[in-house]
Amino acid sequence: MQKILNYVNGQWVEPQGVESVEVINPATGETRAHTPLSRTAEVEAAVQAAAAAFPAWRRTPVQERIQPLFRLRDLLKTNMAEISRAITDESGKTFEEAKAEMVRAIENVEVACGMPMLLKGEISEDIAPGIDEMMIRQPLGVVATIAPFNFPGMIPFWYLPYAVATGNTYIVKPSEKVPGAMQIIFRLIEQAGFPPGVLNMVNGAREAVDALLDHPTVRAITFVGSSNVAKYVYSRAAANGKRVQAQGGAKNPVIVMPDADMEMAVKIIADSAFGCAGQRCLAVSWAVTVGEARNEFCEGICEAAATRKVGYGMEEGVQMGAVISQQSKARIEQLITLGASEGASVPVDGRGTVIPGYERGSFVRPTILMDMKPESAVWRTEIFGPVLGLMHVNTIDEAIALANAQSYGNQASLFTSSGAAARKFRYEVEAGNIGINIGVAAPMAFYPFSGWKESFYGDMHAQGMDAVEFFTQKKVIVERWPKEWTRKF
Amino acid sequence: MQKILNYVNGQWVEPQGVESVEVINPATGETRAHTPLSRTAEVEAAVQAAAAAFPAWRRTPVQERIQPLFRLRDLLKTNMAEISRAITDESGKTFEEAKAEMVRAIENVEVACGMPMLLKGEISEDIAPGIDEMMIRQPLGVVATIAPFNFPGMIPFWYLPYAVATGNTYIVKPSEKVPGAMQIIFRLIEQAGFPPGVLNMVNGAREAVDALLDHPTVRAITFVGSSNVAKYVYSRAAANGKRVQAQGGAKNPVIVMPDADMEMAVKIIADSAFGCAGQRCLAVSWAVTVGEARNEFCEGICEAAATRKVGYGMEEGVQMGAVISQQSKARIEQLITLGASEGASVPVDGRGTVIPGYERGSFVRPTILMDMKPESAVWRTEIFGPVLGLMHVNTIDEAIALANAQSYGNQASLFTSSGAAARKFRYEVEAGNIGINIGVAAPMAFYPFSGWKESFYGDMHAQGMDAVEFFTQKKVIVERWPKEWTRKF
Amino acid sequence: MQKILNYVNGQWVEPQGVESVEVINPATGETRAHTPLSRTAEVEAAVQAAAAAFPAWRRTPVQERIQPLFRLRDLLKTNMAEISRAITDESGKTFEEAKAEMVRAIENVEVACGMPMLLKGEISEDIAPGIDEMMIRQPLGVVATIAPFNFPGMIPFWYLPYAVATGNTYIVKPSEKVPGAMQIIFRLIEQAGFPPGVLNMVNGAREAVDALLDHPTVRAITFVGSSNVAKYVYSRAAANGKRVQAQGGAKNPVIVMPDADMEMAVKIIADSAFGCAGQRCLAVSWAVTVGEARNEFCEGICEAAATRKVGYGMEEGVQMGAVISQQSKARIEQLITLGASEGASVPVDGRGTVIPGYERGSFVRPTILMDMKPESAVWRTEIFGPVLGLMHVNTIDEAIALANAQSYGNQASLFTSSGAAARKFRYEVEAGNIGINIGVAAPMAFYPFSGWKESFYGDMHAQGMDAVEFFTQKKVIVERWPKEWTRKF
Amino acid sequence: MQKILNYVNGQWVEPQGVESVEVINPATGETRAHTPLSRTAEVEAAVQAAAAAFPAWRRTPVQERIQPLFRLRDLLKTNMAEISRAITDESGKTFEEAKAEMVRAIENVEVACGMPMLLKGEISEDIAPGIDEMMIRQPLGVVATIAPFNFPGMIPFWYLPYAVATGNTYIVKPSEKVPGAMQIIFRLIEQAGFPPGVLNMVNGAREAVDALLDHPTVRAITFVGSSNVAKYVYSRAAANGKRVQAQGGAKNPVIVMPDADMEMAVKIIADSAFGCAGQRCLAVSWAVTVGEARNEFCEGICEAAATRKVGYGMEEGVQMGAVISQQSKARIEQLITLGASEGASVPVDGRGTVIPGYERGSFVRPTILMDMKPESAVWRTEIFGPVLGLMHVNTIDEAIALANAQSYGNQASLFTSSGAAARKFRYEVEAGNIGINIGVAAPMAFYPFSGWKESFYGDMHAQGMDAVEFFTQKKVIVERWPKEWTRKF
Repeated sequence: MQKILNYVNGQWVEPQGVESVEVINPATGETRAHTPLSRTAEVEAAVQAAAAAFPAWRRTPVQERIQPLFRLRDLLKTNMAEISRAITDESGKTFEEAKAEMVRAIENVEVACGMPMLLKGEISEDIAPGIDEMMIRQPLGVVATIAPFNFPGMIPFWYLPYAVATGNTYIVKPSEKVPGAMQIIFRLIEQAGFPPGVLNMVNGAREAVDALLDHPTVRAITFVGSSNVAKYVYSRAAANGKRVQAQGGAKNPVIVMPDADMEMAVKIIADSAFGCAGQRCLAVSWAVTVGEARNEFCEGICEAAATRKVGYGMEEGVQMGAVISQQSKARIEQLITLGASEGASVPVDGRGTVIPGYERGSFVRPTILMDMKPESAVWRTEIFGPVLGLMHVNTIDEAIALANAQSYGNQASLFTSSGAAARKFRYEVEAGNIGINIGVAAPMAFYPFSGWKESFYGDMHAQGMDAVEFFTQKKVIVERWPKEWTRKF
Repeated sequence: MQKILNYVNGQWVEPQGVESVEVINPATGETRAHTPLSRTAEVEAAVQAAAAAFPAWRRTPVQERIQPLFRLRDLLKTNMAEISRAITDESGKTFEEAKAEMVRAIENVEVACGMPMLLKGEISEDIAPGIDEMMIRQPLGVVATIAPFNFPGMIPFWYLPYAVATGNTYIVKPSEKVPGAMQIIFRLIEQAGFPPGVLNMVNGAREAVDALLDHPTVRAITFVGSSNVAKYVYSRAAANGKRVQAQGGAKNPVIVMPDADMEMAVKIIADSAFGCAGQRCLAVSWAVTVGEARNEFCEGICEAAATRKVGYGMEEGVQMGAVISQQSKARIEQLITLGASEGASVPVDGRGTVIPGYERGSFVRPTILMDMKPESAVWRTEIFGPVLGLMHVNTIDEAIALANAQSYGNQASLFTSSGAAARKFRYEVEAGNIGINIGVAAPMAFYPFSGWKESFYGDMHAQGMDAVEFFTQKKVIVERWPKEWTRKF
Repeated sequence: MQKILNYVNGQWVEPQGVESVEVINPATGETRAHTPLSRTAEVEAAVQAAAAAFPAWRRTPVQERIQPLFRLRDLLKTNMAEISRAITDESGKTFEEAKAEMVRAIENVEVACGMPMLLKGEISEDIAPGIDEMMIRQPLGVVATIAPFNFPGMIPFWYLPYAVATGNTYIVKPSEKVPGAMQIIFRLIEQAGFPPGVLNMVNGAREAVDALLDHPTVRAITFVGSSNVAKYVYSRAAANGKRVQAQGGAKNPVIVMPDADMEMAVKIIADSAFGCAGQRCLAVSWAVTVGEARNEFCEGICEAAATRKVGYGMEEGVQMGAVISQQSKARIEQLITLGASEGASVPVDGRGTVIPGYERGSFVRPTILMDMKPESAVWRTEIFGPVLGLMHVNTIDEAIALANAQSYGNQASLFTSSGAAARKFRYEVEAGNIGINIGVAAPMAFYPFSGWKESFYGDMHAQGMDAVEFFTQKKVIVERWPKEWTRKF
Repeated sequence: MQKILNYVNGQWVEPQGVESVEVINPATGETRAHTPLSRTAEVEAAVQAAAAAFPAWRRTPVQERIQPLFRLRDLLKTNMAEISRAITDESGKTFEEAKAEMVRAIENVEVACGMPMLLKGEISEDIAPGIDEMMIRQPLGVVATIAPFNFPGMIPFWYLPYAVATGNTYIVKPSEKVPGAMQIIFRLIEQAGFPPGVLNMVNGAREAVDALLDHPTVRAITFVGSSNVAKYVYSRAAANGKRVQAQGGAKNPVIVMPDADMEMAVKIIADSAFGCAGQRCLAVSWAVTVGEARNEFCEGICEAAATRKVGYGMEEGVQMGAVISQQSKARIEQLITLGASEGASVPVDGRGTVIPGYERGSFVRPTILMDMKPESAVWRTEIFGPVLGLMHVNTIDEAIALANAQSYGNQASLFTSSGAAARKFRYEVEAGNIGINIGVAAPMAFYPFSGWKESFYGDMHAQGMDAVEFFTQKKVIVERWPKEWTRKF
């Protein structure tokens, strides 16, 4: 059984005398490890290490700070299979999905390797005769990320490479459910050559979270998780005067127009709704057909749902893996039942799924909730499982109105061949990530991961220049150097 | 007596049945007006008006949205004297200071006139073959500013022009102590041609503030005031899920090096410490001399303090006006007394100031607290009056350490002729606005007003691109348009 | 008869003893003025004035340099009718077209008013420990524009406001055919408050052009005109070591897809082809229909061409004015005849147009060259008159291939309702300005006016940030300020 | 003896039947290789290969185009010693200097790895209701570099990584004197995984240069060399309608103020003047002392010049190597003699240098031309050897005037401890690269290499965003998608 350690000040540390939680392979039900639940003292040690490393790291020129990131990029590439396997065995997703996740992680490292360009400040000559003004971006100090279970290898990389490339020192708290990928990644970080204390990891749960939110030395917090925890993190960190961004849940709509390429729409929407067993904040969660799109799409998507191959993610040909836990499986099944009780039919029903050979696995097959009602509770509830609701309207205006009636705003997608429909949609729909003939509108690493409404609290987002802005503070300098002073020479 | 009205939905509105507070000319003690203390219902009306105006305003092309700003710029220029007189008669500052304040306001309008450039989003072709990605900045909706008393004509313009040029609709709550300037300015706004509801004003105090902080339709809050209220605003708005920036107090140091041009240093530091009667968040509040700078600087600054002409700000030759109120005068005098009790000497003492002909005025003459102690409470307390503390150390390292020991970080200044000292200072000192041979390092409108530490809560600042970032939300779009689809033609 | 003067060093100057050319109202045939053909000596005087004004203007802070631009914007707005009338009476275009031209001119002034933001340089702290690097944009010195006849009021504003806002001093040589608008505009420039020598105007033709191209003090040249003169200007200015951009001619295609909104396509394409009597470098010059688009479009466009009301541009209801001169009329008619001789039919024929009451006017009615051949000379020749060629192909690929076979690359447009067609088109077509369901894809002032291929020589374009880049040179500074040096204090 | 080959379309090619020139180790006089002088046909083949590779390379997503650059970075790092040895043995510089050169090359690769960020275009919603505008950067096609002998491993990297990361295909013509480094580097390029034809190398001299300048398929040319050839390249490429930048020679001044740290100034200026045997376009070529700086600096620099260890660059402890050739040695010695004849004294004289054991080497020891006259020809002539002229003035104003009297403008440096002197200097001195207490103000790869005056022809420079601008053309798109069109659904 793997030992899960903290990584503090360049050392692997085993927290003593703390509770732990089991890490279970969702496909097999086997216990893989125990995550120690670090207490405030362990967080304190990590903060101290990060704070001690900060002054020298901040003084390291940016093009030297990116050198270990270039090495880390290479190491992540060469060790992708090992990390991905750990992701599959802890999160339940397929091996292909795990590798795709790591590709995204690496892209963020690559973007952060361009930090010398991104970190530039500004300068203006002669704001008054002989007086210049400049703005310089300086790092904050110690910053931290609280990561969720669904992308254990990727989400820390929305922040980590930007945080350290800009000169901060950093602490990550992985999800206690999926600590394994970051164990491997920190081994690579160790090889990449970061000075001790620049990158730190503390495993744990609620107490560790609160310790980070409350510690006066931690200058900024990034969080990804459910909306209610996101709001908690946002307001608690703010009450402590911190800079904070907190990304929450989603209930992402997709609109299918009658002029869509229906075959493509079915395939992509199925991938979006059932990929990663629906446990993605960008997963399409409900589809609304417009006018004549209805029949062909509904038939197609039911077929796609019914035939998706479900199983252990390491097995060849498996298209969808397990959900994260038995509790999650139970919750998803309850929500399907709720949907049915609220008037939806269930033409494809994943409740009670048992995969032969993996009877202890937490599997839920793809499920369709047909004719979900806009007044139903299930329509407003994030299921975080492989369940796609279907609705129908007559016009694109109705469809957009329905999308905008949701309190979440993480993603919205449209399938159409019409330039006008696409433009109207992206102009009017209230979500931060928009897909046109795209199922998972995940922004590239050089764009912000841009949630809206209850899917995001804060102003600057993950990835790209938003991350640079978030992890730096601006210093404005006004300088007067009278040329008269040179007369004395 | 002037009537103070709200401006909602393009109409001047008199709140009925509400309490009011007296607006007193701090120099003469005369009552000029009564500010109505709007209640939640008045705020609600303004929010409704702003919300109703939003959809059409947002759809107005940006180069049309800036047209009324161009007109407003002209109107502010031609009406500067009238506005400035109102500022002087309500805030106590001199007429020259009031005009300088309005110059800064106008500069912000001018920068916002450049919004077509600043609002641009980004686009990348071929993030995958045939797939493009773009980022568009869209307005938030209804946004609001809670303004302080010390710059009644300028501080709303740190936000207002950016908020509306980016397509938001806007509500300002001026300080109840100084409502007059904004009454005139909204008359000009009316002439400038903004559609009804785009710009709104609600007068009031605590209840109006809380109504804005709590209203679910208000998407973003900007605040300037004391640090404890700033922190209150930051955490309450965050708990309501809002985007928020809150600018707080200051205790700004200036370091005088032995190689400084001493005559210039004395003049500029006196202007900084005593200008606007010290009621500026960028006022120098304490000076620390290094090595041999001590004697010459101390003599000079005492002389400058003792000879500054104090009086009614509209009178010719007056260099310093009144503080905002009798309560403020009393508080400042108590803090001087506290400083003296903590070991500082008071070679120039402004307590008990009476200006002949203005016996009811709230005047405090320039005051020097010599040899203020780093362990004293007065050193850590924002006085917000014309009081300059003096300290002395032997090296620039000690001086910077002292500056960084403050919990505030709004501004820090250095007087020197050394390029190396300047660079070391701007690199090491922990403040957002830095002056080199500058007394009031106020960023130009095209730079952020960049407080640090307890002087600022949030990430994006006032003015310039920070304001654009703050008042917009990013929408990321991923588009697939298969070229195969064109084969059907 | 109006006197056409030069404007040099803040003075109106009448060149003595020089030849002149008649300025003729193309609609009435009346002589309006005589343009003096300044010689090298007059250019020399203007260059001297501009050079003398440069040092002080360059040292004027940018936010002061934009103040006269704000005033000029207001003056252009209030005097738009007078300027537009002069444009109509010299260029032949309609009064509405002249006003639209001035709107574009003003937009460029507005963008240049945002120069404090656009002129910012860059700074990086710690490129090595204790060493900083910065880049500052500084003006070049004396720069000049050689303007064409077709947009006498607009094209100088693609450059002028950027040139002076960035701190250069400037000389414009208007087209000798249409000097009147700039006479009025320089009267406004005089009122706007620019210091003498900052903005200068020299009227003339070839000798003045060469004098500008050869003068060693002129640092940069911008030119708009025909491609062969553009290439001449580009290579002669380059041989003199200057920075240069030269915009040439065009032969702009439009593709009409079968899924286009045909009514809209006809209307917009007619406006594009016949607006300004076809004398626009963004005018659509030939239309290619794809598949079933043919019949409906051809019928519609012939009808639109045949019914367009032609006459004196100041008359109410006139939709199209005269071409610039009798020579131009003759040349256009010859090209129509050439087209006919090369196999095109001429279902709508503007040859021999006479407008009653304006018998001396240079009128050519809208003309259609149906079934123009790709191998014909007329297809490769810029006509610069109200002549639209029609062609037909079966697929979008053929249509794009045809568009790309042209040696010009100024504009290409597509009419479609398909997002995929639009994307394919903008990805593949080789032109700098692209319209999707747009007839005249004129970039807004905050975007570059971006010709390609033989339509443009250079790298940076007119308008926006391109103009800022073009009119400034970058100075990179590397600074070492050892902190050890502060020990001596 | 090494065989020097071309690299075309992914193949190593030996030009047949062409002349060649000897490549001689300047320190030993030994022949190392023969560079084939490719003729127009070889250039044609390379252009064809590059043109054929362009369409697919341009369609490759930018984040895939950077993958081989990441690999190339690693390969350059691991093969740095081999490349550097080739540089030393062909150019004469020391091994340390060669390695430092390669560090700069690698930094440019690293910056180009950030291309996804740098290549972004712009987008504006609603330039009119329902109409959007965007600007996209697209590659030019085939572009080429003509490289000089003094930095055989670095200068191609000012362009190559940017050219290919932006989607162009590329041809480099190395200097025929120093072909070896690029032979190794192209071996690494081969391993890095670029598709055939994307990167090509043609060895040769004048005929190959002209073939590149004249070929209609080559869209852009970059050149580094002497000013007269730069001007030739600039005007010939322009006459062919190409985009071009051409970097020329230099005669770089350094000003030494009396308040400079004299020990540091001497050391750094000696390194600048004598490093790379003075064969750098950023080498300090003449020093002017101000006031009391004279004696101490002159003594120090003579001492530094006299004691610099000269020899074969691969030998331990050698501080300065050979100049490029016997002809160069002879020319340098003649210029020293000229300087002496024009009134300068030669307190340290490198003429007639013979290094024992390297009697066939082209060595010139560091030389000082004391009291060089401003009216002398030697003061205006680029020596490109280890010769430092000394001059003296009384004020900084005189010193700057002298610097600005030069026709070149590549670099200017100042040594001072005064912030005011530094600011005055960088504000007033007419050069593109400025050093404050810096001897070789080489811009980092993320800044432009910014020559002025006769040191540069063009507008966009090498490195960073300038290179991105230079190697891309902007396409502006205006799109109308009427929302009415969605009603039909």
